[in-house]
Amino acid sequence: MNELTAQILHRLHTSDGYLSGGMLCREFGMTRSAVWKHISRLRERGYTIEAVSGKGYRLSGSPGIPVSEEVMPLLSTDRFGRNLVFQEETDSTNVQAKILARQGAPEGSVVVADTQTGGRGRMGREWISPPGVNLYFSVILRPSVPPTRFPQIPLLAAAAIHQALDVAAEGPQMMIKWPNDILVKGRKLCGVLCEMESEPDMTHFVIAGIGINVNLRDIPAGIKEIATSLFLESGREFSRSEILGTILNHFEPLYEEWLEAEDLGYLLPYLEKHAWLKGREVKVERYNGSLAGRVRGISRTGELLLEAGDGKVHVVSSGEAQLQK
Amino acid sequence: MNELTAQILHRLHTSDGYLSGGMLCREFGMTRSAVWKHISRLRERGYTIEAVSGKGYRLSGSPGIPVSEEVMPLLSTDRFGRNLVFQEETDSTNVQAKILARQGAPEGSVVVADTQTGGRGRMGREWISPPGVNLYFSVILRPSVPPTRFPQIPLLAAAAIHQALDVAAEGPQMMIKWPNDILVKGRKLCGVLCEMESEPDMTHFVIAGIGINVNLRDIPAGIKEIATSLFLESGREFSRSEILGTILNHFEPLYEEWLEAEDLGYLLPYLEKHAWLKGREVKVERYNGSLAGRVRGISRTGELLLEAGDGKVHVVSSGEAQLQK
Repeated sequence: MNELTAQILHRLHTSDGYLSGGMLCREFGMTRSAVWKHISRLRERGYTIEAVSGKGYRLSGSPGIPVSEEVMPLLSTDRFGRNLVFQEETDSTNVQAKILARQGAPEGSVVVADTQTGGRGRMGREWISPPGVNLYFSVILRPSVPPTRFPQIPLLAAAAIHQALDVAAEGPQMMIKWPNDILVKGRKLCGVLCEMESEPDMTHFVIAGIGINVNLRDIPAGIKEIATSLFLESGREFSRSEILGTILNHFEPLYEEWLEAEDLGYLLPYLEKHAWLKGREVKVERYNGSLAGRVRGISRTGELLLEAGDGKVHVVSSGEAQLQK
Repeated sequence: MNELTAQILHRLHTSDGYLSGGMLCREFGMTRSAVWKHISRLRERGYTIEAVSGKGYRLSGSPGIPVSEEVMPLLSTDRFGRNLVFQEETDSTNVQAKILARQGAPEGSVVVADTQTGGRGRMGREWISPPGVNLYFSVILRPSVPPTRFPQIPLLAAAAIHQALDVAAEGPQMMIKWPNDILVKGRKLCGVLCEMESEPDMTHFVIAGIGINVNLRDIPAGIKEIATSLFLESGREFSRSEILGTILNHFEPLYEEWLEAEDLGYLLPYLEKHAWLKGREVKVERYNGSLAGRVRGISRTGELLLEAGDGKVHVVSSGEAQLQK
């Protein structure tokens, strides 16, 4: 989208009622036919713009593509999303965000893609990333805290997304699965992949990569039993730019609070309330073998508290928790 | 150095006595004058090659440039240094090693440079890297252990370097300063900068970057009071390729042992014996303010144990320890 078209879109976005063609002409120093050309371009891109004789133009529908022009007017943040790079297709938004971070991109910068050719989840697993329907984005964080607090960030991101989806897509009961997924009725709606570059006592940056199945209608074979989407759970479509904006609006204040806090203590009530694993029997695969037990909760520093058969409570800092029948 | 010249150098390196010209001709399928051309090239590069009529050629001195052809014959390792990239000049060997690691370079790969234009120490500080005299190299590690063990690697590397220098440059009494320097009489001889790329529960790779002042004669103004070199401490020059080979030969087995171990426990006696800070009064700058006290030792997981004025022992996981007068 060219700069002028984007500015006119922004003007329509932030206007309450109709904007007269004459006013747009004066504001942007262009002819009526030039204004009309930009309006046509926006319509071609999927925006619904009413044109009423004597009143002017009004934006009444948008395609919800998470481009800067659409997301920016929705933000209440200081930094998160203020630098937003949209890519039609990329290998992986985490890879792109890491490149930007190494070049010095500011904290809160976001890379979002319509589709990923190499989308990944944790442990190098594939994250299926078809175009036109879902959200794939990565946020650059530069937390001035010791790298040892890094494992708390996936839970922090999951809580922010959970809060945001609760607002933006009320209806389906979403649960947070330690350490970084959001499930509906046990099926994955959202995954978080955090990556860090650090020295032992200095975090260079953290990338919080987030994938959300938004308007996906057909879950690909192979993950049919374990994945879902907002559309499938609610029966309606969502604007991806609105979902993205809402998440960033929740993520920034939660993150600021975390930077000030010692640990995740302030978030524990929320995490516990929406915890998918709490009270369940699970088996966790770890570096040094697996551990089975009943989940008692989450520690202030983000570890899973697992009560083994002998009554001893183990503090599990990493791994994949599988439900036991 | 072209491939054939390198092969002849390797043959000379690994030969016990004289190698006859006739044998070299047969082995490499070339004329006597061609052999002579390669010998001349090697001499131009600083190699001392004796030529005795009726006996042949013998390598009796090398410039000690840490190139693959020189280092390889000295290695007793399986993996460390087996893939060795030498660069006359680079920005930073850590930066180059990270690029190689992201492209999938195997564990133990080494990037070494004659000079660095952007050499860095911890916390983004400059590491002065003049050409022709010192060692600047980075080892790619892919430890299959939780990222939480990452802060132990600088101490591991420091111990390996200390062991190696004790063998290769006996004389000056070298001490290990927590968490990652080697000092002689309080002046820095060697620094280690470790960097990691990880997920919360999976280490992608660790780069162990090592800078050693070897044959440096003039310490630049500004660090004159705090830095030294092997030359300045012993009054003689060292082969950089020998120092590098010896370090890799010590680093690999120590690292293998660490992978099998729970923590640094097996190395504690060595670390304690050569600890510069032990028993001293220090102040450590940390994220959340500074802490002063007397150093009691190092924990099994690599933290500094600091006894404060009130007798309480604090476990310090990161920071810069400054000696107090």
